[in-house]
Amino acid sequence: MEKDEKIIEMSSRMWEKALPHISVDSVVFGFHENQLKVLLVRMAKGQKWLLPGGYVFKDENVEDAAQRVLRERTGAERIYLQEFGIFGNVNRSEDFFRNYDDNLWHKQRFISIGFYALVDYTQVNLEIDHYSDTCEWKSIDHMPALAMDHQTIYDNALTVLRQQLSYKPIGMNLLPERFTISELQRLYETILGRKLNRGNFYRRIMRFDVLIKHEDQRKGGAHKSPNLYSFDPVKYHASLQGIDW
Amino acid sequence: MEKDEKIIEMSSRMWEKALPHISVDSVVFGFHENQLKVLLVRMAKGQKWLLPGGYVFKDENVEDAAQRVLRERTGAERIYLQEFGIFGNVNRSEDFFRNYDDNLWHKQRFISIGFYALVDYTQVNLEIDHYSDTCEWKSIDHMPALAMDHQTIYDNALTVLRQQLSYKPIGMNLLPERFTISELQRLYETILGRKLNRGNFYRRIMRFDVLIKHEDQRKGGAHKSPNLYSFDPVKYHASLQGIDW
Repeated sequence: MEKDEKIIEMSSRMWEKALPHISVDSVVFGFHENQLKVLLVRMAKGQKWLLPGGYVFKDENVEDAAQRVLRERTGAERIYLQEFGIFGNVNRSEDFFRNYDDNLWHKQRFISIGFYALVDYTQVNLEIDHYSDTCEWKSIDHMPALAMDHQTIYDNALTVLRQQLSYKPIGMNLLPERFTISELQRLYETILGRKLNRGNFYRRIMRFDVLIKHEDQRKGGAHKSPNLYSFDPVKYHASLQGIDW
Repeated sequence: MEKDEKIIEMSSRMWEKALPHISVDSVVFGFHENQLKVLLVRMAKGQKWLLPGGYVFKDENVEDAAQRVLRERTGAERIYLQEFGIFGNVNRSEDFFRNYDDNLWHKQRFISIGFYALVDYTQVNLEIDHYSDTCEWKSIDHMPALAMDHQTIYDNALTVLRQQLSYKPIGMNLLPERFTISELQRLYETILGRKLNRGNFYRRIMRFDVLIKHEDQRKGGAHKSPNLYSFDPVKYHASLQGIDW
């Protein structure tokens, strides 16, 4: 079977090139027009889906490895990945490669370093690597079963992304340059997975103090034309650093 | 030389017991009465100080390893450590063990997983392990030179601790049960390393909505007796989860 040979070939290459026991896995959230998706790969039809992951070469920085692996597996480049957690429990993986010899690279105990990103998925060019069969954006409302402990890694990344909404602004590069408060609210609702109270949302978002209100309004709706806002880039980037006490 | 033998003995034990290429390092901040300190160890007099660190056993979860290493190196138990970053660059360490054989365990490339904690240092019992010579709380205002890249790991932990002040309440178990707003402000000032404006601090801390104001006041000061506050434990723990949008 062709797939098997690829894995065995990869195994001996990895024993030579990579650091044992260490892997990187990336959770790339893609947003566009009120849809939140996540980037998944699959080795062969009928197999479970995986987060795009891989290994750290002996002469490579860990963050560079995460970028390279994502590029190799999905074709996606220039995605800013942030480390968000370690998945280091013994026996964290089910025996995904149980039909292979024990000296297979993939059968080691791996401690995985989790990275995440949130991007506009229409801006990402996907290409399938020689190793995976498929690479797709999957809606977070219709997630397929994930292999090994990738569901846990994904769940943790989503929790971190949602927590980030509490203390960091979000939305630049995900919304059009000018947007209404309702459009911003829908971004938050999509990430949080639930409806928010309009008044509470308005008050809380205003506390971040990162918006510029414009004179012009969004035309064409059934109701009173809503005001347009944009992010103040200086305040936006300053508030990424946290409160200025 | 006695020290050398200990390291060589430890090296062969580690090749047997631990996962290669992976280390854990902990930055334990200790606070008490407006003093912020950090827990450091030193292998021998005249050598540079280090963060308490070690390795992950083959049959051990990573977080358990961080707890065990801290206990073995300093005697400190039941300290809740949080992972905050990965230090995974090639050549991140100076050649701390340059006088030893290349097969020494310690001379590998290590990817270090950083953990941090903030505790009341009077509640921590320190004991020196058989491997280090010294273990001490050092004031963050008078830090000694740290070996390898431990200064970077420490700097990152302090940045994360300071960012945490923006979005999580802090102070439970560090302040007396009832405290004045000035006492809380001094805790924040100590961690941030600078004075804060009293009015701004009051407004910002009130936004967290985690304090209960009490009828009784702190007696004995030269000025008007200030009100006493305590943390509302339910609201405090809820706000650790982030904003309820």
